[in-house]
Amino acid sequence: MIRTEVCDLLGIKYPIFQGGMAWAGTGKLAGSVSEAGGLGIIGAGNMPPEALKEEIKKVRDITDKPFGVNIMLLSPFAEKIKDVVIEERVPVVTTGAGNPGPFMREFKKYDIKVIPVVASVALAKRLEREGADALVAEGLESGGHIGTITTMALIPQIVDAVSIPVIAAGGIADGRGMVAVLALGAKGVQMGTRFVASVEAEVHPRYKEAILKAGDRSTVETGRSTGHPVRVIKNKLARQFMKLEAQGASPEELEKLGTGALRRAVVEGDVDMGSVMAGQISGLIKDIKPVKDIMEDIIKEAEEVLSTLSKAYLGG
Amino acid sequence: MIRTEVCDLLGIKYPIFQGGMAWAGTGKLAGSVSEAGGLGIIGAGNMPPEALKEEIKKVRDITDKPFGVNIMLLSPFAEKIKDVVIEERVPVVTTGAGNPGPFMREFKKYDIKVIPVVASVALAKRLEREGADALVAEGLESGGHIGTITTMALIPQIVDAVSIPVIAAGGIADGRGMVAVLALGAKGVQMGTRFVASVEAEVHPRYKEAILKAGDRSTVETGRSTGHPVRVIKNKLARQFMKLEAQGASPEELEKLGTGALRRAVVEGDVDMGSVMAGQISGLIKDIKPVKDIMEDIIKEAEEVLSTLSKAYLGG
Repeated sequence: MIRTEVCDLLGIKYPIFQGGMAWAGTGKLAGSVSEAGGLGIIGAGNMPPEALKEEIKKVRDITDKPFGVNIMLLSPFAEKIKDVVIEERVPVVTTGAGNPGPFMREFKKYDIKVIPVVASVALAKRLEREGADALVAEGLESGGHIGTITTMALIPQIVDAVSIPVIAAGGIADGRGMVAVLALGAKGVQMGTRFVASVEAEVHPRYKEAILKAGDRSTVETGRSTGHPVRVIKNKLARQFMKLEAQGASPEELEKLGTGALRRAVVEGDVDMGSVMAGQISGLIKDIKPVKDIMEDIIKEAEEVLSTLSKAYLGG
Repeated sequence: MIRTEVCDLLGIKYPIFQGGMAWAGTGKLAGSVSEAGGLGIIGAGNMPPEALKEEIKKVRDITDKPFGVNIMLLSPFAEKIKDVVIEERVPVVTTGAGNPGPFMREFKKYDIKVIPVVASVALAKRLEREGADALVAEGLESGGHIGTITTMALIPQIVDAVSIPVIAAGGIADGRGMVAVLALGAKGVQMGTRFVASVEAEVHPRYKEAILKAGDRSTVETGRSTGHPVRVIKNKLARQFMKLEAQGASPEELEKLGTGALRRAVVEGDVDMGSVMAGQISGLIKDIKPVKDIMEDIIKEAEEVLSTLSKAYLGG
């Protein structure tokens, strides 16, 4: 049975996190993942604090198991979101887009576990020093906002640099990927795209369909020139964005094109002019399943893969 | 003992290829890797045919075991290099930068194994149909000329799409990486950067030093705008190149800056204005070792990793 120290740390059954995606990481999805034994994470994104309270309530209507909130540190509401998390005693916080240093001390006072998402060794080491309980190390094959290093290259370098547990994100959608990152030294996986293609995900059916239709080369990186690269499924918006970027458009022009684009895709199902954030592993995803099946199938496949490798190469 | 069908196919002891790097993949390095049980590969690059003959002789002075030649299909000498490979009955050919279709039929007449390097599912499927004996699937974390998909995302998608063996390249420098790609379904690994940091590699000591000094964020991708992206260690040349690219320089201007740059780094040791091609896994490489030790250490570590995972997660 695949169980790691991350399960003990957080009180969960499977070392599987659902990425705290803005708009897509709703209370319903997070609650369903937690109820099924993983760690569901609400993506607070740019949510106002009242909205987060509602999503937390939805999680608690579904499950009494541990769950998390992802705080986007650049959000104008970051400070207030932090207060809600404390008030509601959310068990786990993940953070993106910056250094959660100042918040970390407060969370720790309330025994809230803090697990920052990192994309480099330097930030990993710094956040370990500042008290992070674990880290999500995210490769550039992930959907949404990304760094510059791939999962294969990043995980072992971060594992060697810190002693807290590392959860791998980016490029994982099945049991093979899970065993791969366990071999690299990770103690768990975080998946985003795989959970978007679930029954419980409250994204528009056309968004899910876009993931199922994607092949290996369907995603592109936009915004590298702005310093805030984002991986999306290539569509009309992405092509416009890349064209403007190549022409040397100003950050303001690009931002204007991007404003509201994720909501348009997730909520309205505009998969042409919306931002369909998804990872490079989309090409491997061929079905929409309940989150319980997603997790149980992955654990089962991971055990089979490991058993096959052992027999083949250890003669065991 | 980690042995796969690739070992049987090629008559080698370890399922480890040394990437056929231009300038760095010399007869001495390739011969040493083959003699130690892997598949050494001469990087023909833009070599004229006589130079390749000399390198093949060097391999054969070191070993009588199987080895390979990498043919860069864009080379002006590609056709003549192909003739030398046939004349010399080189056991294995890998190919880059294009579709080796027309050459493939000729090689097969002489029972020369053909193993194209691919970076997408579409090309993998096409080359299997055209008779490839196996494929090297290369992630964008590799050094040198690269594609757009990471190893973690690419390997399972290609493994699912073809039935010939897949050798994984990109982001692998130790036994953890080897087990990771075996879990993803690969039947072997190809490593470039790890072998450049070997005693036998005939690259300038300053080139090796640059790899040892590299951290996780030391490499950059240049030339994405030209359609021929290349991963190198960030230096003065790379910065100039990126600046020109951002300014919308013409392909000709960029090509001019790149001409002779790899030779400058490998042969002259100019690590400021030369092209120091290296993978994102450079940050993991901390020593220069004999190729025999590199391979034996990796196999040993891979077996240990697999054994540890089995004990932890299969209770075996």
